[in-house]
Amino acid sequence: MALKNIVALVGGVGGAKLAYGLAQVLPPGQLTLIVNTGDDFSWHGLRICPDVDTIMYTLSGVVNKANGWGVANDTHHMLGMMQQYGAEGWFGVGDKDLATDLLRTEALRNGEPLTSIMSRLSKALGVLQYILPMCDAPVATMVDTVEHGEMAFQEYFVRERWQPTMRGLRLDGIEKAQISDAANEAIAAADAIIIGPSNPWLSIWPILSVPGMREAIIKRDVPRIAVTPIVGGQAVKGPTAKLMLELGYTPSAEAVAQYYSDGSLINGFVFDEVDRNLASVNKGLQTNVFNTVMQTDTDKVTLAQQVLHWLENWG
Amino acid sequence: MALKNIVALVGGVGGAKLAYGLAQVLPPGQLTLIVNTGDDFSWHGLRICPDVDTIMYTLSGVVNKANGWGVANDTHHMLGMMQQYGAEGWFGVGDKDLATDLLRTEALRNGEPLTSIMSRLSKALGVLQYILPMCDAPVATMVDTVEHGEMAFQEYFVRERWQPTMRGLRLDGIEKAQISDAANEAIAAADAIIIGPSNPWLSIWPILSVPGMREAIIKRDVPRIAVTPIVGGQAVKGPTAKLMLELGYTPSAEAVAQYYSDGSLINGFVFDEVDRNLASVNKGLQTNVFNTVMQTDTDKVTLAQQVLHWLENWG
Repeated sequence: MALKNIVALVGGVGGAKLAYGLAQVLPPGQLTLIVNTGDDFSWHGLRICPDVDTIMYTLSGVVNKANGWGVANDTHHMLGMMQQYGAEGWFGVGDKDLATDLLRTEALRNGEPLTSIMSRLSKALGVLQYILPMCDAPVATMVDTVEHGEMAFQEYFVRERWQPTMRGLRLDGIEKAQISDAANEAIAAADAIIIGPSNPWLSIWPILSVPGMREAIIKRDVPRIAVTPIVGGQAVKGPTAKLMLELGYTPSAEAVAQYYSDGSLINGFVFDEVDRNLASVNKGLQTNVFNTVMQTDTDKVTLAQQVLHWLENWG
Repeated sequence: MALKNIVALVGGVGGAKLAYGLAQVLPPGQLTLIVNTGDDFSWHGLRICPDVDTIMYTLSGVVNKANGWGVANDTHHMLGMMQQYGAEGWFGVGDKDLATDLLRTEALRNGEPLTSIMSRLSKALGVLQYILPMCDAPVATMVDTVEHGEMAFQEYFVRERWQPTMRGLRLDGIEKAQISDAANEAIAAADAIIIGPSNPWLSIWPILSVPGMREAIIKRDVPRIAVTPIVGGQAVKGPTAKLMLELGYTPSAEAVAQYYSDGSLINGFVFDEVDRNLASVNKGLQTNVFNTVMQTDTDKVTLAQQVLHWLENWG
């Protein structure tokens, strides 16, 4: 069957790669991204949403392709001046990036929901897909570490470069959050739901923890698949494998598949070609095998095409 | 007598030139600038203080010398991105400038008085003089124009390039303002008070209108002089002469001297050399004649030396 509405749950750079591929393949208006906001934080009075912005910059084409985040040809003159004033400068906000942060912060102060703000901003940049923050309420992923106790996410991830040993995660404010109408409607109308190759704990777990989100997904009788973020026991990028070890898992695509299939969240899983041997042994899940390591834009489009082709021929 | 403490009332670029000269000549800690904040405004949630920043950038040496305001080698990447979002971009805030605005806005939101904030920021940039905002309360100079009615100052000055015809001025919020302890103490300890060659109505009148300011100055039995902003009937820079005509004055240094001497605010006035003929006819004021058109840093230092020499030999 032809797929009209695809919903993808994504975090930062890894998810953005697949989102880019899907956006190239699907007609405008048929792709909705539900994006992690647990990484969001306030910095010198600005509200910063790293994952949402990464998706918006990626889909609008302004992204810094070398980094996978931030705006192309950006500078750090504001940050340099801030350091002249003696302020700490470990979070590298770019000058162009600041425009997003300023407009968002101003609109939030005026009472506009984050969902509405990101819709306006992404449309202004020419994005034809729907970028939905996982919720409008502020939720902060807090990382409990052996070395420093509990840390704010960006302190753990950026300042400490995810080197501390994680022993737990907590979502501050999650009890006050709820799934937005827009996310609820997109999931209800979805012909397939894709969990992107993002960090299952740092990027996807916060989304799934938004009250109403997991239930809305599970009750849909459509393909609900995840694309592995682990290839050959290693993370494609970032701390996924390190974190799995710290949380007591064996770092493998199979463990991720089991993590997601617990509670019947997913009914399908994409393994990488190097893990072809793992794909056959999974019970209760439909599986497929593609090249999931997206190094070029062509890789991203190819994976999106393969995944969509599989979903179209589901069952 | 040797002068130990000089207080200068200044606005933007013209006042900053004399402030620069005075700062080169006077030992550290002997110069206090009381600076107009009527131009201050909020822009996308940021609190912007153009005159205070111009003085701080000038005295710290980071100023863009070609403009006389802003930071040297600044860029406008944030502004360009904001325009990509469709936001209006007539106020040209630079990327480095943004660091000042962000730190100031954050501190104001945390309840720190503007006087304290600017003291911290200017010290961090190595400024050895005291830069005091005219008051801590927000005051907004509102310009009543024939063409557009009342306009916020920056709309009149920057967006409309001071082309509308002024028919009146109002200081919104002035009734809630009061002279700060720091300004009061600086004036009480001053051996001389200098009104810089700033726009008497747009830059100096707001300072003098702060409750307690004019009285604090007048009661001091010390030289209280103004340096002319009008040379040969023309403004050195900006709209002073145009504005004088619109307010019913003849644009001349003499009219400025009379404006300031009304109510005995000043007891001395510096004319430019081209207005030497006007200097002799003023009654009740001590006068002197110098080259007041400061084109080079040497001009600024020379004028400061001449003014200070005159004040040292006062009476």
